[in-house]
Amino acid sequence: MIKKWRTLKDEVAFRGRIFRYRQIERESTTQKMHGHFDVLDFLDWVNIVAITSDNELLFVRQYRHGVDDITLEVPAGAVEPGEDHLLAAKRELREETGFVSNKWKKLGVIHPNPAIQSNRCSLYLATDCTLEGKPQLDPLEELEVVKIPKSSLIELIMNQEIQHSLTLSALFFAQLDQAL
Amino acid sequence: MIKKWRTLKDEVAFRGRIFRYRQIERESTTQKMHGHFDVLDFLDWVNIVAITSDNELLFVRQYRHGVDDITLEVPAGAVEPGEDHLLAAKRELREETGFVSNKWKKLGVIHPNPAIQSNRCSLYLATDCTLEGKPQLDPLEELEVVKIPKSSLIELIMNQEIQHSLTLSALFFAQLDQAL
Repeated sequence: MIKKWRTLKDEVAFRGRIFRYRQIERESTTQKMHGHFDVLDFLDWVNIVAITSDNELLFVRQYRHGVDDITLEVPAGAVEPGEDHLLAAKRELREETGFVSNKWKKLGVIHPNPAIQSNRCSLYLATDCTLEGKPQLDPLEELEVVKIPKSSLIELIMNQEIQHSLTLSALFFAQLDQAL
Repeated sequence: MIKKWRTLKDEVAFRGRIFRYRQIERESTTQKMHGHFDVLDFLDWVNIVAITSDNELLFVRQYRHGVDDITLEVPAGAVEPGEDHLLAAKRELREETGFVSNKWKKLGVIHPNPAIQSNRCSLYLATDCTLEGKPQLDPLEELEVVKIPKSSLIELIMNQEIQHSLTLSALFFAQLDQAL
């Protein structure tokens, strides 16, 4: 039976621009086993599966610094400290795409990486999205809104044109919810 | 049209136990825009959707230090430097569960997080898995093998008992491949 480990030490060792790195020492509570572990704290995140009234999915194409390449992802972003996750999702959809919706549904909450990250990512479905205005991008954001017909989505995934694990998880939940 | 940015500076600023942190300065090649970015390098990873000859999925339950909680995930692990991804997948399945398979299929390659991580995660499907022996765990691994009937999987996901974004992505690809 797996049980939670006991924390012996938990210290912030380093702060990056968008993360905090903690060095943690823990011991098993069921076996003679103890070690040192890396944990990274980020803000929580939101990912949005947004569908227009024309049955098109809203994606964003952007340059991503981690992989040094251009990716295709659903609208997403960080939840500000203290911000409600749904409000963050509405804000990110409006900022990144210019679209808004009155029909929101929470699809679930996932762990971006439970082994090394403490944060959560909330997944939302927004339907009947309509264009309200121009995107309002953050100072260092450069992105392009891409509309994808529902009928093309599976082929794009199978062809590996959508590779972000959080986007894929959001689309999986939307599919299980029968929105796709 | 989104284009790749130009790298002005790329320096290793810190090394954790299992990652390297780079501080990168880049400028857009299409707009007057430039900034500093965090990038984390990890080893590549593999995730395996493993199905036994009895139509059960092999999962592992383990304590995860990032979220300080117990999770349910597919067998997975890091690819050693220079190691072939398929061989890493076979090794991880054998080590974590004791099961082996002669039927392997690559489902795809995804980005754990293209915004801040450089690494990739290869997804595999292993079918007709059979028990070969006892798991051979790494020194700090404590995990429990859990067999889940195919017919129970969707309910477990909808109930949020499976929350790891890489596990969910692997299961989505396996479903699109009609293995589930």
